[in-house]
Amino acid sequence: MKKRALGPQGLLYPTPVLLVGTYGPDGKANIMTAAWGGICCSRPPCIYVSLRPATLTHGSIVAGGCYTVSIPPEGLIREADYAGLASGRDVDKFQELGLTAVRGTRVNAPFVEECPVVLECRLVQKVELGSHTQFVGEVVEALADEDVLDANGLPDEHLTRPTVSIPATRHYYGLGECLGDCFSIGRRAES
Amino acid sequence: MKKRALGPQGLLYPTPVLLVGTYGPDGKANIMTAAWGGICCSRPPCIYVSLRPATLTHGSIVAGGCYTVSIPPEGLIREADYAGLASGRDVDKFQELGLTAVRGTRVNAPFVEECPVVLECRLVQKVELGSHTQFVGEVVEALADEDVLDANGLPDEHLTRPTVSIPATRHYYGLGECLGDCFSIGRRAES
Repeated sequence: MKKRALGPQGLLYPTPVLLVGTYGPDGKANIMTAAWGGICCSRPPCIYVSLRPATLTHGSIVAGGCYTVSIPPEGLIREADYAGLASGRDVDKFQELGLTAVRGTRVNAPFVEECPVVLECRLVQKVELGSHTQFVGEVVEALADEDVLDANGLPDEHLTRPTVSIPATRHYYGLGECLGDCFSIGRRAES
Repeated sequence: MKKRALGPQGLLYPTPVLLVGTYGPDGKANIMTAAWGGICCSRPPCIYVSLRPATLTHGSIVAGGCYTVSIPPEGLIREADYAGLASGRDVDKFQELGLTAVRGTRVNAPFVEECPVVLECRLVQKVELGSHTQFVGEVVEALADEDVLDANGLPDEHLTRPTVSIPATRHYYGLGECLGDCFSIGRRAES
């Protein structure tokens, strides 16, 4: 199949759907949705979110040096979308969405109680890339609802029901069919 | 629901499944699979992959200053898994997997012809985080198969059929049900 050049576009997909929690300058709990986020180191465990400087959350992370990431289940996808549309400067998003803000156990940032898995992060690197600042955070604590843990004590995706987005076409999806086990199904993939 | 503290674990999910292409020191085309990857800036468009220094690809990116990211469809998930298990030091993964290496149009790194979408990246930042180095690349060209483009000229996920992984439980998934449109379904999410 012939490939067409589309120009310089960051067409990487799928991206996770993440709710970034911080306290604002007035001390009020705030969340915003980020799709520019992921894992960037295993030891120490580091993740990142990339945010525009114009956002309230950007200033809050710079000021506070920490943030949380709450991972919304499918059932909160409308709330997650709203949290990416509205600004904490204009509205109390927790209140508007009927969500519960809980202070982190290890960092001074709030998480979303209704999300089954939460990561508490201490800012360790701030990388300026252009339109976005990348905030690399070391995960100092992971929290999960007791009832989503599997036999190994890890969050079971059948219970946490995470979502992804396709940025280019602007669609959200849940998980589909399980395609197999990582570090396993490829052992006989040689042609 | 009471939350349990799981300790410092990078339990962010889902993660994309990406094939990172480089030429090795012997000039041979190589790929490796990365789940630590994502979008980190919109303008200029930047993505990243995080790799362990022990990998052949790590050295190739440092030496060459560029890499490609090919996004495998569901039908290549076994090949993608294999490319994360084997080392280019031991085997020619393109040959083993029956895949076709094509030199990038803008960077000196190979991509996987059988993948419908490819990003060509110039290394712009190298962030040392511990076990992994984060390689931030500016996307200088995006390529896509003609037959996966939608009416807007963007890759249609119903045709590209991307995959994700859940790192903690080590499962691959395809996309499931479409949950709605980004920047849209939340407009009436207020409680």
